[in-house]
Amino acid sequence: MPKSWFLDTMIPPEFRFVPTDEELVQFYLLPKLKNFPLPAYPIPEVNLYGHSPDYFADRYNDHEQKIWYFFTPRERKYSKGNRPNRAAGDGYWKATGADKPIWSTNKIRVGSKKSLSFFQGSPPNGKKTLWLMKEYTVGAPQPANQSMRLDDWVLCVIYKRPEKSNTRASVEETDQPSNYIDLDVLANFDHQHQIGVDYETPTEVAEMNFDEIYDLFINQ
Amino acid sequence: MPKSWFLDTMIPPEFRFVPTDEELVQFYLLPKLKNFPLPAYPIPEVNLYGHSPDYFADRYNDHEQKIWYFFTPRERKYSKGNRPNRAAGDGYWKATGADKPIWSTNKIRVGSKKSLSFFQGSPPNGKKTLWLMKEYTVGAPQPANQSMRLDDWVLCVIYKRPEKSNTRASVEETDQPSNYIDLDVLANFDHQHQIGVDYETPTEVAEMNFDEIYDLFINQ
Repeated sequence: MPKSWFLDTMIPPEFRFVPTDEELVQFYLLPKLKNFPLPAYPIPEVNLYGHSPDYFADRYNDHEQKIWYFFTPRERKYSKGNRPNRAAGDGYWKATGADKPIWSTNKIRVGSKKSLSFFQGSPPNGKKTLWLMKEYTVGAPQPANQSMRLDDWVLCVIYKRPEKSNTRASVEETDQPSNYIDLDVLANFDHQHQIGVDYETPTEVAEMNFDEIYDLFINQ
Repeated sequence: MPKSWFLDTMIPPEFRFVPTDEELVQFYLLPKLKNFPLPAYPIPEVNLYGHSPDYFADRYNDHEQKIWYFFTPRERKYSKGNRPNRAAGDGYWKATGADKPIWSTNKIRVGSKKSLSFFQGSPPNGKKTLWLMKEYTVGAPQPANQSMRLDDWVLCVIYKRPEKSNTRASVEETDQPSNYIDLDVLANFDHQHQIGVDYETPTEVAEMNFDEIYDLFINQ
């Protein structure tokens, strides 16, 4: 996580910032828009459309993080419309899924979430990258004006889809107790002595999608 | 999360118990085995092999949790071997994947993780259920004795794979700003006025597996 006195001293390490959509909107985005104080997790202000996502990953890299939260403004694509300008760095962001409404616990719609992918190059011929974004916005009608500024702040989460690995572990499965080992000889443990034998792929886990897995942790 | 004064008052709700494998072993399982004090998250002691997993899900249901952490002893299957007895309630647990070694940050192997599925009925003809387990054990050689007790404590995480939904959202994707809405009219928002149009499935997200997604949050 980013450096923060509160996080470093008050939150045990096994507790991590894994917010619900509603918490992101209600605790972070709405207070940000109203200039209210923000809670514990520090979310930087950036111009996310000023650079490619790799730039931000390099620059905000305190703790080997793999998921980044940012507040960013957005510009209009055309002066008379509400379409955002998605050009960014050497490419552009493009929506890949339907907007998902975000509901509060008392059934008020408090915002929307959009999924986007980053493409290198120019539309419509850009090359899809592994970068993904989830963009959180609140319910606030835009006044029709001539400014190119569309929003003061939206909240964006960016992360890179891991590249597919073809090296699924293939180790003998015996239902024996899980490899009991002597702590004293651990330093000499030789990984290569494990014998490779195929076993049934645990597809029931592999098939779960992001939202399903995320959801497991949200309500624990 | 389970009820706990510390959790309720000291941990902001957007911070959740999402431990690394190493933290589970080093902060919870090893201290448990040594009778040392345990950290913030309350992990109940149960006999996980005394009942089917649904029993525990019903009984430990304080906060709509979907993932459960338990300490449990294990019994031997045969008096002279180290194979655990996996019978439980009206069925049995069966390993589905290879053991995964758990390494500390200073490259010492501190334990192992095993994946299991719950089957109803008797082996080998049990019916696979949606229940999954991850079992954490430490490196400790077992003394050869006649007792049927194999371990005093192993740490188990159980959760139910969500049933596949065939109702993927299909809503027009326009790259417009994310459905700006007037907060005052939210109470009257009519879901059914959204127009259904197919869009490209965001497969890059759906294809990520459990470990990849979990991993995103672990190092943020």
